[in-house]
Order: sequence, then C-alpha cells, then structure tokens
Amino acid sequence: MSFMAPLLDAEIIAIGTELLIGGRSDSNSLFLADELGRLGIAVRFKSVVGDERQDIVTAIQTAVKRAQVIVMTGGLGPTVDDCTREAVAYATGHRLGRRKEALEGMTARLLQWGRIPNRAQLRQAMIPSGATVLKNPIGSAPGFCLTWKKALIVSLPGVPREMEEMVRQEVVPLLRAGTKSSGRLPRSPIVRQVFHTFGLAESDVDAKLKGLIPNGAPVDLGLLASPMGVLVSLTTKGNQSVSEKNRDLLQKLVHDVRSRLSDWLFAEGRDTMEEVVGRELTKRGLMLAIAESCTGGLIGHRLTQVAGSSAYVDRGAVCYSNQAKTEMLGVPTELIARHGAVSKEVAASMACGIRERAHVSVGLSVTGIAGPGGGTETKPVGLVYIGLDDGTGRPITREFRFHGDRNVIKQRSSQAALDFLRRWMLDQVPT
Amino acid sequence: MSFMAPLLDAEIIAIGTELLIGGRSDSNSLFLADELGRLGIAVRFKSVVGDERQDIVTAIQTAVKRAQVIVMTGGLGPTVDDCTREAVAYATGHRLGRRKEALEGMTARLLQWGRIPNRAQLRQAMIPSGATVLKNPIGSAPGFCLTWKKALIVSLPGVPREMEEMVRQEVVPLLRAGTKSSGRLPRSPIVRQVFHTFGLAESDVDAKLKGLIPNGAPVDLGLLASPMGVLVSLTTKGNQSVSEKNRDLLQKLVHDVRSRLSDWLFAEGRDTMEEVVGRELTKRGLMLAIAESCTGGLIGHRLTQVAGSSAYVDRGAVCYSNQAKTEMLGVPTELIARHGAVSKEVAASMACGIRERAHVSVGLSVTGIAGPGGGTETKPVGLVYIGLDDGTGRPITREFRFHGDRNVIKQRSSQAALDFLRRWMLDQVPT
Repeated sequence: MSFMAPLLDAEIIAIGTELLIGGRSDSNSLFLADELGRLGIAVRFKSVVGDERQDIVTAIQTAVKRAQVIVMTGGLGPTVDDCTREAVAYATGHRLGRRKEALEGMTARLLQWGRIPNRAQLRQAMIPSGATVLKNPIGSAPGFCLTWKKALIVSLPGVPREMEEMVRQEVVPLLRAGTKSSGRLPRSPIVRQVFHTFGLAESDVDAKLKGLIPNGAPVDLGLLASPMGVLVSLTTKGNQSVSEKNRDLLQKLVHDVRSRLSDWLFAEGRDTMEEVVGRELTKRGLMLAIAESCTGGLIGHRLTQVAGSSAYVDRGAVCYSNQAKTEMLGVPTELIARHGAVSKEVAASMACGIRERAHVSVGLSVTGIAGPGGGTETKPVGLVYIGLDDGTGRPITREFRFHGDRNVIKQRSSQAALDFLRRWMLDQVPT
Repeated sequence: MSFMAPLLDAEIIAIGTELLIGGRSDSNSLFLADELGRLGIAVRFKSVVGDERQDIVTAIQTAVKRAQVIVMTGGLGPTVDDCTREAVAYATGHRLGRRKEALEGMTARLLQWGRIPNRAQLRQAMIPSGATVLKNPIGSAPGFCLTWKKALIVSLPGVPREMEEMVRQEVVPLLRAGTKSSGRLPRSPIVRQVFHTFGLAESDVDAKLKGLIPNGAPVDLGLLASPMGVLVSLTTKGNQSVSEKNRDLLQKLVHDVRSRLSDWLFAEGRDTMEEVVGRELTKRGLMLAIAESCTGGLIGHRLTQVAGSSAYVDRGAVCYSNQAKTEMLGVPTELIARHGAVSKEVAASMACGIRERAHVSVGLSVTGIAGPGGGTETKPVGLVYIGLDDGTGRPITREFRFHGDRNVIKQRSSQAALDFLRRWMLDQVPT
C-alpha cells in the first residue's frame, strides 16, 4: 500500500425540488458520511438540486471534477418529476433501457404488496446502459451504479430506509471490492468523535477547548450550537501514512475534551439525552413520572422515543390549564394564586404531585412561559422552572431564563429538565 | 422591460462541517427560497461544504458559473474553523482588512451584552476589500457582499434568526435596487403553492393528479412523501413574458388540485395540521383534552407548538402503563384484561375518560404498538387505535396499521389522530 495512492473523496447529490427548498432534516447525509467515513472516504461536498434534468446533469458534471465517489439520492420514483435516470444517462452518454433484473426485483416487491406494476412504475426499471442494477430490498425503485470519468456514480432512492439498506447490502461491499482491486486506496478510516454538551454557550465551550489541538495536528475541531446545546466534534483528517499516530493523538484529545467539558458533557456519538437519561434511570431502578406545562408533552415524547422506555416511564401529565394542575397533580389553588403558575413553588408542587399520584420514585416537572404572549415585566417570556421530587420531602427546583421563539423555548426547557434529572442522578450515591 | 433580459438564478452555499454531515433541519434554505422567489430569483442549486477554505473556494468558483446571486451562510463566527471570510477573499482575489463599520457594529452589539470584543471576535471585523459590510442587528458577526464575475456574492451568518433579519433589512433592498439599476431583470415572481395531504399513498396522490398540468404549461408539479403525509406543490417557472397568463393558469390549477384532493387536503402553504386543528377548535368553541399512550406526549407537544393553544387545549394524559390508564382515565382494568391495552374498546374508554375528567367538549385518544418490541401475530407493531368522544355517549374509534420504525409510527399516529379530529369537526353541523 503506497503512501501516494490516490485518496478518495465523495460528493453527495440530493435530488428533489422540495429538498432544495429545505425545511426538513436530512438524515441521509448523516448516514452516508458515517458509512463512507468508515471506509476512509470523506464526504467533501453535498449538492442539492431540484427535479430538473439539466440541473442534475450540471451537478454530475461538477461532482466528477472533485470527487471519485458520487452518491445521488432521490428522483428514482415513478412520477414524472423523477428524472435522475434520464439525467445520469444524458450526462454520461449512455442510453436508457428497461432492464430485466430491475423489472424482476420491482415486480417481486409489488407482488408482496398484492400489486402489479402500473405504467408509471415501469419507468423505474429503465436503467442507463452499462450500469449495474442495485437491488432495493424494501421499496419498489431499484438503484444503479456506473463508472464515468474515473468516478463511481451511485444512484439510490431518497427514502431513508431504502437508501440505508441498499448502502449496507450493495454499495459498501462494492466500494470495498472496488478500492481493493483498482489500487485506488481510500484513506485510513476517518475517525470522528462527537460530544454533546448542554448548559454552556458556544463561546464558553470554545474557551474551555482553547489550545486543545496541537499546531499542525491532523485533527479538526468543530463546534455547532443549537437549542439542544453545543455539539463538539473531533475529526481526523485521515491519511494513510500517519493513521497509527493519528489514532493515538485522537485518543488523547478525546480524554482531554472529556475532562475539560466535565459534566456539561451529557452524551457522545449518536447517543441522545433521552437515551442517557433512560440508561441512568434503568441503572438505578428508578421509575419516572412527568408533569409538563409549557413543554406540552415534549418531554414525554422525547423519553418515549427510546425503545423500551415503558420500563422506566410510568406516565405524564400535560397540565396546560391551572385547573388541570390542581385536578391532575393536587397543586393547591392558593399556591397558584399566591405565586403564580410559573413559580418555583408550583414547579415543586407539580413534581411532588405527579410522583405521589403515580406511586413512582421520581417526579419531574416543568412550568414556564413559552411565549410569544403571556410574559410580564417580572415574569418574562422564557422564564422556566424545573422541579424534581424523590419523595424525601425536599423537592428541588431551578430557574432558567431562555431566549428565542416558542419552539426554541420548549426545546431548551425539555433539554434543561432532562439534564437536571441526569445531573441529579449523577449526584446520588450509586445503589 | 425586454423579454430577453437575463434572468437571475441563485445558489445557496451553506458552510459548516456539521451541516455536511447532516441530521438537522435546514430552515435557512426554506427562508431564502421564499424571499428570493418573491423577487423572482429562483434558487437552482444548493451546495454544502465543510469548514475547509479550499472547498469553500471551489464552491464559489462553481457557483459563479451557474448563478448570478450567491448566498453563503455560515463560517463567519469567531472560532478558528470559521473561514468563509478568508475563502471569499482568496477566491475573488481581494485582501482581508479590518473594517471600521464592521468593528463598530460588533462592538456596539457586544457592549449591549456587557462584553468587549475579545481577540477571537476581532476576526469577525475582517472583511474582503471592496465588499460592502452588512449589519447584523441581532448577533455579533457582520456579513458582507461583493460583486465578482457578474455575480453578487452575499455572505451571512448561519444562525437562522440573524440570517433572516439581515436578508430582510439588507439583502432584499440591495437586490431590489441592483436588479433595477443593472438592467438584469429577475423573472416575474415565482409563485409556489403547496398542499398538504394525509391518508393517501404517494402513488394514489399521483394518480389523482394525473393529467392535471396541460402539456407545455410553465408550471411544475412536485410530490414529496413523508410520515406526515404527501406534500404537493405547484410552481410557476417564472418568465417575464407570460407572467399574467401564468397567474391565471396557476389559479385554475390550484382549484383543480383542491377539488381532486378533496378532504385528504388538510392544509396549504406553511399551515400545519396543528394550526388547522387549533383554528377549527376555536371556530367551534371546543375545548380539547388528550389521552396518549404510544405517542408519549407528541400530540400534546404538537398542539402546543401553536401560540395561544391554551385557549383550546386543557390538558393531556400520557398513560404509558396500564395502571396509569386506569388511574388517570378510569379505564376499567377488566376492559384492559379482556381486550388488551391496544384495542378499540380501550381507545374509546380513554377518550371518554379524559373528556370527563377534564370537563371538556372533546376527548381524543391514541393507543398502539410503536415497536420495535411488543408486537404479536394478531397485534403487530404499527397497530394503532384512535378514539374520540364528544360526550354524546357514542365514542368513535378507528384502526390503523402503520409501517416504519418507532419514530415513524409515533409521527404517523399523531398525524392520524389530529386528522381524525379535523375530519370529525368538518362533519359536524357548524354552530
């Protein structure tokens, strides 16, 4: 294996006018960056184009100049606006023709659903000449790949489940085999470590990590702030010759990041706050009940995103009205009258109330003003109280003052509540 | 105004390694497509690049070949990985220098927060020579714009609130003035109409809309399926000479789409299911309470995303355990034992229970198996029952069988429940 072997860069081309317009989360890129990175192939560019044949052609022409692996997603459906097949054929100078193996796979799939291919769906079996058909084990649209101008062009459906399965079953083995036989070597695996923090501003995280990376070290530090906290990433640049050294350096840096971020760090990698909280609850044998006001059910929703969460989430009360707080949780009406529904006293009472009614070990509560209306001079929009009660008679509370719109305040409140619970568990003597 | 005047195309370049890796929703593109479209400028391409100077340079060089308006977002922060300033200067052959107006704006902003600029933040005042500084009315990083190779390059922060305000206050007036004085005309406004459907498969929507658009008509039809339903869009191609005719045609097509999709169509434009349901509840003076099992709080969360929802959402119960269903809603234990927690009988009982306990007009319930575990042969993962009770003694229920992972099943269940409520309201005699 020569040090000078050409390294492989990848470009993702996502196709769809709706994607161009945005507004949706792009999970495909996350998945592709991971899978390709594991093979040592770096995703350097991502292009998004609408369902216009000429624009897709331009994107392909641009991509082959700067990437050796081009993964196209979308535009393989049966409807008229799906024109990826035509665009690839046109750009690479191949003809489209109906392919037996594509038709068979699709027909078999539709048959399982008790359907026969209609005329529109038959379009999906049209594949550029010279391309290899990639089976779709989940949906009806087959994919394909071909080599053009020294680049491998892979075309896959945009539906995440279909795309992911096809990458695992078809594309990864192909890339593995291809990079071996062609002498075109991928880099050593690109190692990427992600850290999730909550409670620090981006500039504070930046300050804590100042001077972390030695000058000239082949590791990139990335920061990204969102309402859910600041994400920190370390990524090796991936280079055949220094991979061993890189790995040691990364190891050291990971340790440094952990110690510098201490307990602001709540998760690493793909782990989420709700998974971390779930594991900690399980480890301690705790059963949780939640009382939500301004978050409206978001905390319950997040906790129950985790498979098996019924083992530690008993119930939740969404108490939007004051009457609901009294009837569902037993918050005294006088307490609300005296301190207001958004107060540490009511947060404490809500946490106790839900814990007692659910007969569980821990009650967690949130009450706040999500806005845009409802704020006053003393209780502005963004004022949020979190309460936690474990039945020892001393519920604990914390005040937060968040900025942002209604959605941001709800998101941050849910994250703050789960983080409060996480930190409380860490402070407990382990059983 | 000449028909031959050059039309303007736009490209968005989003900068950030974390964006390249994906996994987050890109609201910036949605906003930019809207704002530019209103000026008749079509977003044709979107490029995403990491925080690598050379890759940003390549993206700029590619963009100027195919777009006349280039909007770059991100990479203007104070941290070392923010290198958009350097990349623009390098690509366009300008020098970077600290600019008085950039420094003043930033210093004033930080002063408001009781801070003075630190050394890292001073980098944010470095602007390519010849560029115009764009004020940031919200954050500390100024933007800038300059003309290069006949394209207008605009560089803005990636933080949505900052980017949006700067586009409104600085970029839109600039584009208006520029397109007027230069004789480079934008197209007539690109009109885009979006329709949201639920309950039909993409191929069924496609079939219903077959032959909608006359041959050669300058309108594009787009379809996009997601767990929340199928989105349909009509977009005029925007052409100075036929704008009047286009508008009439679009009007007619909008009518056609509405009638073909009938009540599968639940919203148009940026409207969401939860907003539609909120308006219908308000119109009818109804107060709602929700009982959720498998959705875990998602329905409550979605309804309370709407400002002012406290006027029609009283409370919600998240009853994950059977005991919670009995204690919070009064679902008889025998009923659960006889029919199982996931049954139409329990769904009906949950809806009645929450309605009675909340003393409200409508109770809505969901119980189902979100998976991946918990399914049986007769009750597979994805089996979901929705219940609705209005106190007339005849709760109504409906069975659904969804496919997908836990998250997809939760999302679809919440959408199905809200749609069930919406359709029920439409069937009521208006008061």
